Order: sequence, then C-alpha cells, then structure tokens
Amino acid sequence: MAKMTPRTLSGFMELLPAPQQQMERMMEILRKTYSLYGFTPLDTPVIEASEVLLAKGGGETEKQIYRFSKGDADLSLRFDLTVPLAKYVALHYNDLSFPFRRYQIGKVYRGERAQRGRFREFYQADIDIIGDGKLDITNEAEIPAIIYQTFTALGLKRFQIRVNNRKILNGFYAMLGLTEKSGDIMRTVDKLDKIGAEKVGALLKEECGLTCQQAEEILTFIAITGSNEQVLAALQGYAGRHETFDTGLAELNTVVRYLSAFGVPEENFAVDLTIARGLDYYTGTVYETTLLDHPEIGSVCSGGRYDNLAEYYTDKQLPGVGISIGLTRLFYVLGEQQMLNPQLPTAPADVLILPMTEDLSAAISLATQLRAAGIKTQLYTEQKKFKAKMNYADKLSVPYVVFLGEDEIAAGVVACKDMASGQQTKLPFAETLALIQEGLTQRNQGTVILEK
Amino acid sequence: MAKMTPRTLSGFMELLPAPQQQMERMMEILRKTYSLYGFTPLDTPVIEASEVLLAKGGGETEKQIYRFSKGDADLSLRFDLTVPLAKYVALHYNDLSFPFRRYQIGKVYRGERAQRGRFREFYQADIDIIGDGKLDITNEAEIPAIIYQTFTALGLKRFQIRVNNRKILNGFYAMLGLTEKSGDIMRTVDKLDKIGAEKVGALLKEECGLTCQQAEEILTFIAITGSNEQVLAALQGYAGRHETFDTGLAELNTVVRYLSAFGVPEENFAVDLTIARGLDYYTGTVYETTLLDHPEIGSVCSGGRYDNLAEYYTDKQLPGVGISIGLTRLFYVLGEQQMLNPQLPTAPADVLILPMTEDLSAAISLATQLRAAGIKTQLYTEQKKFKAKMNYADKLSVPYVVFLGEDEIAAGVVACKDMASGQQTKLPFAETLALIQEGLTQRNQGTVILEK
Repeated sequence: MAKMTPRTLSGFMELLPAPQQQMERMMEILRKTYSLYGFTPLDTPVIEASEVLLAKGGGETEKQIYRFSKGDADLSLRFDLTVPLAKYVALHYNDLSFPFRRYQIGKVYRGERAQRGRFREFYQADIDIIGDGKLDITNEAEIPAIIYQTFTALGLKRFQIRVNNRKILNGFYAMLGLTEKSGDIMRTVDKLDKIGAEKVGALLKEECGLTCQQAEEILTFIAITGSNEQVLAALQGYAGRHETFDTGLAELNTVVRYLSAFGVPEENFAVDLTIARGLDYYTGTVYETTLLDHPEIGSVCSGGRYDNLAEYYTDKQLPGVGISIGLTRLFYVLGEQQMLNPQLPTAPADVLILPMTEDLSAAISLATQLRAAGIKTQLYTEQKKFKAKMNYADKLSVPYVVFLGEDEIAAGVVACKDMASGQQTKLPFAETLALIQEGLTQRNQGTVILEK
Repeated sequence: MAKMTPRTLSGFMELLPAPQQQMERMMEILRKTYSLYGFTPLDTPVIEASEVLLAKGGGETEKQIYRFSKGDADLSLRFDLTVPLAKYVALHYNDLSFPFRRYQIGKVYRGERAQRGRFREFYQADIDIIGDGKLDITNEAEIPAIIYQTFTALGLKRFQIRVNNRKILNGFYAMLGLTEKSGDIMRTVDKLDKIGAEKVGALLKEECGLTCQQAEEILTFIAITGSNEQVLAALQGYAGRHETFDTGLAELNTVVRYLSAFGVPEENFAVDLTIARGLDYYTGTVYETTLLDHPEIGSVCSGGRYDNLAEYYTDKQLPGVGISIGLTRLFYVLGEQQMLNPQLPTAPADVLILPMTEDLSAAISLATQLRAAGIKTQLYTEQKKFKAKMNYADKLSVPYVVFLGEDEIAAGVVACKDMASGQQTKLPFAETLALIQEGLTQRNQGTVILEK
C-alpha cells in the first residue's frame, strides 16, 4: 500500500512525551493558582459563528482568522479568549453573579506567517474579573498578586510586574492639550524599549505632529523612574491639573498601597510610566511582566482594566480587568533558554514492574497494590530479553524498577532498584512502598522553571 | 451602536460555571486514573493537513469533517484522537519507546446533524497502548482494570464491562465456512440489543444469505450466557476445530484469569459473545461498558485490540489496544439523568471575605493567609449593601463567608459563617482555618457521579 508521509503542520506545537509532561505541570500550576484566587474554570467552543466572533470587525486579526463554511454556516476559530468571554457573559448574563471571575486555559488560532517561535495554534491562559456596571479598584490591585503567585509557583524569582495606569497617561496628555493625539502618542511611546528615547522624540514630532516642547514634556514624563515611592512622588507634582490624571494617580496609589498585604514583594513590582499596552481597549491599570534576565522575550503576562467588555453584544456596561499568559510561546521560550527543570520526573510511570515468572498473578497484584497507594505503575509484560527491558526503563527515565521472581514471591519481598542512584533493595511491600513514596516526594520537590 | 445578538452554535456544549466545575472534576479524575496506569499525556493539534488526516479515506466520517482552506493549505479538524495518534507514532517513531502508553483528553469535531444530546464539538478521553511489532495479551487483560478504576473513581458501582474477542468470532465463522461473510454477520449480530434475536436471524438469512442451519448455529452461539466460567466452559466445547478460534479462546481465558489480580470484581465484568464493535478495525479483545440502570445510553466506554495502528503512514507493524470515553456525551447524559452529585462544591471560591472596614489591608492580608494555606479565597470589595453581598455568596453557593470588621481586627479574631449550617464562629485565624479545612474535606468527600 502507498504510504502517506506523516507530518504535523508548521506553526503547531506537538511535543514529545517528556516535554509534554512539563507542559502539563505548568498548566496544572496555572489551574491551581487561578483557583486559589477564586476564579472559576470556563470552557467555550473553539468554533463560533463568524458574525458573532467578528462583531467588532476589522483590524489585523481578521486577516489571520481561520474562517470557513460548513453547510450554510459561516464559521471561525477563536483567535483569543476575550471575545468568547464577552459573548459568554452577554449570553449568560442572567445566570451569572457579578463580579464574575473566570479563568480559561485554551487553544486559540491565528494564521500568522509561520516563523520560529510563532505559533498558529497556541494556548492562552487568561483570567478576568467582570463587574456589572461597576468594578472596584481593589480588583486591579489584586492582579499583581495573582501574577506574582503564578510565576513564583512556576519557579521564577527574577521577574518584574510593571504597572501603569491609562488614566494617568490620558490625563497627562489632556494637560498638554494632546487628548486627540493620545492614541498615536501612546503607540509611539510603546516603542521606547525597542528604538530608544531619541527616536521616540523624533517620531512624536514627525508622525504625531507634536511641538518640540510637547515632545520634550512627554520624554521628561516617561523618564520618571526610581522606586515606587519616588515615581509616585514625582507624579504627585502633576496633581491638581486634570481630573482624569488625579483619578489615575489615586488608583495607582491604591494598587501600590495594597501590594504588601497582597504578598507581592517590592522587588517584583515597578510602576513604569512607559507602559501603555498598544490597544485602545484598556482604560485603567495596565500590566506587563518581564523576566529580568530575558528582556528580549518581552512581556510574558499582560493585561489591564477595560470599561466595556461586551459592547458589541449588549447595552449592559460590563467593566473588567484581566491578564493573559501566552502559554505555548512561554513554554517554547523556556525550552529555548533551557530553563525547564530536567530533574523533575517525566516518565509515564514512577514504577516499572518487571515480572520474572510465567504466571503474572503476583506481579499484577503488586501493580494493583501500588496503584491503590497512588503510585503511577506500569507492568512490563512483553517477551524481551532482560537487557531490553532495562533499556526501556532507562529510555523512559522511570524512577524505580521493581523485580518480582519466584524467590521474592516465596520470601514475601520485592526487589526494587532506584534508577538514579543504582541502589537496590529487597524488602517487604510496605517498606518498599515507603521508600518509593519518600523518593518521589524528593524528586518532585523542584519547580518546573529553573533560573540560572 | 447596533448590537450583535450573542449566541453559541448548536451542537456545541457551553456550560455555566457550576456544571463546568463538575466537568473539570471528571476530567481531573480521568487524568489521575489514566496516569496511575502509566499512561503519558499527549496533546496533538486540532488542525491537521487534510491529506494526512484523511489518508484512510472514504467512510461515513469524511462527510462530517470540518474541512477548509487557508492560503494554499487544505486543512481539517480532527474527528477523533486515533488518527492523530497514528500520525504521531509514525512521525515520532524513533523518539518513542514501545510499548508506548498515552492518554489524550481533547476536543474532536464532527459536523453531524444537530440533535438533542449529539455534539459537533466533543471531548474524547482515550488511552492506547502501542506495541512495536508485537504486543502481549496482558495489555488486553489490563484494560478492564483501567475501565473499572475510572468509573469507580467517578462514583459508579452499577456498571458492567462486557468483553469479547474477535478471533473467537472469526474462528467460529470460519468453522461454518462463513469467513467471507463474517463482517456482514457481525454487523448484523451487533443489532441484537436493538432488534432482538428473531429479527437478527431473519436478517442473517435475507441479507447475509445464510442457510437456516447456519443462522441457527449463530443464534445458538451468541445465546451462550451465564457466569464467565459458564461461558468459557461452553466455548471450550468448540475448541480444537479452528486455530483462530483456539487462539481467541486462549486470549479470553487469559483476560478472565487475571481479572481478580487486576482488582476487577466479577460482577463488573461479563464475557458477552454478542459484542463485535461494528468496526472492521478490531482484531482481538473488544470492550463495551454499560450502565446497568441505563442500558438505553449504550456503551459509555468502548474499544479493543487492533493490529495495525498506522498502516497508512508506515510499514512498521504497530499493534495496539485502546479505549475511548465520549466525555461530552457522558456528561450530558449524566446531567439528564440527574446523576451529577449536587452536594460537591461548585463555587469559584471556598471562602468569600467581606471586609467591613474602609482600609482593606487587614482583609487583604487575611485573604493572602488563607490562600497560602491552600484555601480558594475571594475578596469581595464592591460597594454594595450587606444584603447584596450575602445574596452573592448564596447565589455562588460559597461554603464559608468570613467577616472582618474593626472589632474582629482589634480582638485578633475572624467571624466566619458556615453557609450550609448557618453556624457562625468568632475565633482566631488558626482555629477558623482548621474549621474551614475540616469542613471542606467533608464537603469534598462525595463522588462526582451519584447512583440513585
């Protein structure tokens, strides 16, 4: 028969078993951490009606969308988890309680040009808090705690949550009489990290049409740095000149004030006036998260406050705040940087049983006992040479191999080899189990991500 | 602004938060149980190249497939998890160790006619064991243990794993000189549950062209029932007449012999000669699982042994055995039958903190402490009347509400209300935490599925 060459589409991540285990670990940590903060898991369809998904219309994303017909239906694959959330909240409004806190970890689709480290199918891990009409600023203050807890649980220490407030920026631009240009200005300032202050200044004049003085004022403003206290003090100098600015500053003060109660160390947090988040969508606090040793990666967790989640579907005012982790890209980058902890077990099983008798009843019973004790156990029953069996255990990096022959059965013991240390024991079941449990606890102590 | 009416496509399950929590619980149990048996998690793309996905070609499924173009690419959404597994194993053959045991819980897509309880996007939860060239019969004997463990962990007791062996059927048909018609015969016999023995007999004569005697022999054969021992004894009466039959009987004997060592009670298992699994794909042991009180649901977990997983992609002989749970349909049916345990917590948080002071630092610190202790905690900070706040807690079915006012802060205590019993306590943090932890342990003791 002619064979079809198997292949996986480019831009689609398909992991081998060991890295997949690492990915699963990361997802498990995200689920756990998000749950700890009172977010409920959601799962929405990958396919939506195109007119619903694209209600907002236009934009860069539309070109990238996987859109197709099935029968009479015009369908599209979701390109983020925010539009499906907006639809969900508008559709199920009467069945939900607000504030509505949900997390969703799911695949989204963008038919971008394929290139290294860019994915067409990728996981986003989002949380959002949606209010009905209003949403208290404390929710915005809580977000850095969730980011901090998430990355700490993953094993990172050297990261910084950078925070700004769009009202401060908008108010500041209003003081300069530049309200109408604030969108353009923010998009230009957003390039600061990439092109530097001088070029930003030039673009502000050339492309945004600012005067030299206006450009100068903006550069002075975004150059305000230092400790959170210092930045807030410098901002206080602008207070009283514009209401929006003052509101934004009060919000930022609240966010900073509650940091320590939320358990976020000062060194993992920075007020950063250069952050605007390119989108016009955000209206209050905005967040970016950078790895201090890998600034080239850019933000690994971003988001912010918005005023109107579902305006394309409902008249209800639904303000919210949310963040998103681009999980597939993060995982890819961590792999590239060799930051995934190779010490954590990735084998399908913790124990591989090699029966040495023809009748397998005793070996099977042993497997059943181990599983009842919560130990991931595989029974190896293929007719192979002993060496081939041990090779199999080695290739999978199984932590423990257990041998069961007539002698062991007769003596009521189990022979167990610790594959890392090479140490071999012959002990009764209960003692072997205790030994394995202790060893596994130790082996699982490390974090998924390792900083170097 | 004109609004787009939000909607979710028909045939696509989108759950409200409380049932979604139940679904998550089921998935978590499947992940855990599958892992316990040494299966490694896999995740493959939802989209594949059409020529790869449809290499087998033809068949009913092809019409149902979501197929579309993007640029030059002819793409399809996966319609099961078996074809992607075949592709995966053929593609990554050199990087895998065999037997290769994987589980995958993922969404698949079939554009079937929408009707109640039928889904176009649905989860399948599959496990497969793939051998390289050979695969020992013990793997087939292990499958009932995994099914038993899975459904028991979900909370079911009254279910039966029904097992047959295709070699027994094929061998038996060969004895009657009906080998060439065995496919047709098996498809007809498969209808036994639906149409009864008499009509099956008629169809065997009319449609399959069997003589009266042949039809009679088949009806006698499939009427063999009783305990596993009785059925095996009756089958022994046919032994020695055909090699394939004898091999099948030996395999079935092995499967039954190891049942108790694998921890499967006799009452949850039955040899059932009427099971053939419609597909031509299976070659050895086949499995179906039925809920004894709900035979109308049909099989909730099916599968079997096959000889050649990836024949469309590779010359390598890759035999395997696998089972699949149609998770979305199962969840839907359990909901319909009101078999989902309403006692298990479904709230986003276990504790809702209602701060009674203007400064929130103490309430936030309390939330941080509870979270550090592993308690899912939400801080409610909206400016609402007390009654609205309690309504919110009620609507979400939050197990505990904690109040923190000036008095409590001054006294170093926490006021905590058990929302189920109405009991209210005022105790130091550590004692409140212990009380909450104990209560949650109790609340989480039940199983997801409840039999009535």
